[in-house]
Amino acid sequence: MKTLLSGAVVVTCNESHNVLRPGDVLIEDDRIAFVGPKYEGDYDQKVHLGGYLLMPGLINAHTHSSMTLFRSKADDVDLRTFLQERVWPLEAKLTDEDAYVGSLLSAIEMLKSGVTCYVDMYFFEEGLVRAALDTGIRAVITPGIIEVPGLVKALGHWDQRTNTVIDFCRRWENYTGRIHTGLGPHAPYTLPFEALKEISSEAKRNDLPVHIHLVETKEERDNFNSKGLGSTVGALEEAGFFEAKVISAHSVWIEEGDEHIYTRHHAGVAHCPISNAKLGVGVAPINRMLSAGVNVGLGTDSAASNNNLNLWEELKFAPLIAKAVSQNPLVISAEQALWMATRLGAMAIHRSDIGVIANGMKADVIALDIDRPEFLPATTASDYVHHLVYSANKDMVKHVWVNGSKVVENGQLLMLDEAETIKKAGVVAARLLEG
Amino acid sequence: MKTLLSGAVVVTCNESHNVLRPGDVLIEDDRIAFVGPKYEGDYDQKVHLGGYLLMPGLINAHTHSSMTLFRSKADDVDLRTFLQERVWPLEAKLTDEDAYVGSLLSAIEMLKSGVTCYVDMYFFEEGLVRAALDTGIRAVITPGIIEVPGLVKALGHWDQRTNTVIDFCRRWENYTGRIHTGLGPHAPYTLPFEALKEISSEAKRNDLPVHIHLVETKEERDNFNSKGLGSTVGALEEAGFFEAKVISAHSVWIEEGDEHIYTRHHAGVAHCPISNAKLGVGVAPINRMLSAGVNVGLGTDSAASNNNLNLWEELKFAPLIAKAVSQNPLVISAEQALWMATRLGAMAIHRSDIGVIANGMKADVIALDIDRPEFLPATTASDYVHHLVYSANKDMVKHVWVNGSKVVENGQLLMLDEAETIKKAGVVAARLLEG
Repeated sequence: MKTLLSGAVVVTCNESHNVLRPGDVLIEDDRIAFVGPKYEGDYDQKVHLGGYLLMPGLINAHTHSSMTLFRSKADDVDLRTFLQERVWPLEAKLTDEDAYVGSLLSAIEMLKSGVTCYVDMYFFEEGLVRAALDTGIRAVITPGIIEVPGLVKALGHWDQRTNTVIDFCRRWENYTGRIHTGLGPHAPYTLPFEALKEISSEAKRNDLPVHIHLVETKEERDNFNSKGLGSTVGALEEAGFFEAKVISAHSVWIEEGDEHIYTRHHAGVAHCPISNAKLGVGVAPINRMLSAGVNVGLGTDSAASNNNLNLWEELKFAPLIAKAVSQNPLVISAEQALWMATRLGAMAIHRSDIGVIANGMKADVIALDIDRPEFLPATTASDYVHHLVYSANKDMVKHVWVNGSKVVENGQLLMLDEAETIKKAGVVAARLLEG
Repeated sequence: MKTLLSGAVVVTCNESHNVLRPGDVLIEDDRIAFVGPKYEGDYDQKVHLGGYLLMPGLINAHTHSSMTLFRSKADDVDLRTFLQERVWPLEAKLTDEDAYVGSLLSAIEMLKSGVTCYVDMYFFEEGLVRAALDTGIRAVITPGIIEVPGLVKALGHWDQRTNTVIDFCRRWENYTGRIHTGLGPHAPYTLPFEALKEISSEAKRNDLPVHIHLVETKEERDNFNSKGLGSTVGALEEAGFFEAKVISAHSVWIEEGDEHIYTRHHAGVAHCPISNAKLGVGVAPINRMLSAGVNVGLGTDSAASNNNLNLWEELKFAPLIAKAVSQNPLVISAEQALWMATRLGAMAIHRSDIGVIANGMKADVIALDIDRPEFLPATTASDYVHHLVYSANKDMVKHVWVNGSKVVENGQLLMLDEAETIKKAGVVAARLLEG
């Protein structure tokens, strides 16, 4: 099946920042088979996209999808209160079906806003897979591994849980070409150090990514540093943790020089500037990391600390807060920001097959209606990049293809009844929150 | 004419933070004539708004509307470069008609995103009035008064210009009930100190607001402080400047204690967190100002330093950046943020007749479609306030009433052909920017 997307402005996010004005993109099955000014070959169907902009689908490098059920239930508090007093008690009441419904809500919100791939760390992993399959989105599901008293009963100790997760990964990896898997050790402060080493070895052995929260708060850093093992990232390097394909969420309080450890081991970072700001934990040094060559992607974190999954907000907020805190408007350009949401994000999550519109890449593509005041003026190629970062928003996203299939058309989901899901979620929320 | 808006969740933004679930709002001519759980009287038409949320229209307390024509043309540079190398050369080429078209683009963007009133400082003021009249929005137009070499030829010296502006205000004040006027002395660094005193006196004599940029950058503060007049806000108080109704944009670098000068004189502040971040000038101390009782509103500034006019972004960004830089998640609550965009914003711009859904207020009201994942769960009244601040966005705004008239229906402008305007603006941009 060959679908020709014709006549749009194409922001490729390739290494040369190419913008075609206009260009053609051919989707053949699940892959991009042509990108250029004009396609002259054969095709099965043609979609006229004059007045639209095509770009790679956005990548949400860190979220907890079922937690949309807790949206706005843990605002204006610190991370400890957030987890211990607000989130964990609610999580104790969750069922499989709840987690599935919460994850559906997230997938709907992400797809409609142009996110085509997300990295999920949560429990109830079978439900997470179902939600991704039912909506048509691409997901990297890294089931959480955590050793806190309230959850051991449900999940088992970390070693049992790791076995469960590895089994999960083997069953689901690459299912339909858009379910990907990995291991989700929660954080150094919720697992024994020994566990982190072991989980990473298992991941390496199975060629799976490891998705972890690292040095999100100053308190976390100070607590770890006081143990005499060195700094978090340094100690983990020494233990061989970074020999696996690591996705490090947050990294707000890494030490000077830790960025080189990341670069050396090709560890990716999921920068979550809105969640970090909302919880008042600080601002991650992404300029330092990007300058050192670290693959930094963008994550929304969960809807409980954001409170939505609209990656366009991260795309704008990341350069803005970097400029604000450094009082330097030259720091983090629009081009760098756009890369973090696309090609760098893909590299950060260890997926070399998405994030760019180029021959041979998976066809995860979004089309934005740019016949709008927000996209005027557009007299140069770079205008489009700058408008995408500083002026665009999710309401412009009209069509979405994932793995070559159209999953959003004119802003409407094709695979799922959104209204029905919202109704279901209302019932779940009432039971969880009003009880 | 009596229109009953029935059955929506009503977030009143009144002093008690009342949220009706659901409630009725009666619009009679240009005013709100009833707010409560159930209206039992007579009406001419009824709008069923189940599944919607009604709230006061958002107030953009500081912008330069025609500058949408320069969107993304001055990114990732400092304020001096921004003005002297990017913006001023473009402004030198602007015509009356250009300014009108640019202002139309702004009004379209604002109205469709739920901004019902904005404070505009620009030149070509007759065009600004036309744009507001043609779109149906409420505008406070404060023509710029500035003494820089490039503009004296066009505008005259500040004293002549002040006379022109006063004459403009007399002609247009309260025209159709939704055009408001004031004086727009640009800034202490672009006008003689004597001029500021005189302009403020004229404003006071004519009971008009004075809209000015104050201490936006550290450099500006240091330059003023080195003159021996004291600090900017202190010197202006001494000169009687604050006896007029002042709207102070930015106020990023006010001195410790200046907030009490603002409170004493009921001066309002237009906080522009996105523009301030993007230009790397710093973060205004709004927690200090709000704690002192200053009326702080939110402004987008122009599309050249933002790069859109979507006040939902300021609404979220203002509390986030305050929490981030203070590393304190308790600073600036969702309730405070929502007030800045509505009732406090109204007080900041010296309009006591908007910003709240209450009996007798002007009927500037917006309806949001909240049957969305982004508004789940909603089990308490405060959920709605938190969702509005941390999760909502402009795509939810479906209907907009200004001064009692419906101006946006199902997301479409009723008074103006948007596509036609976009075409016109494209032509203007090409001439200005490609020449």
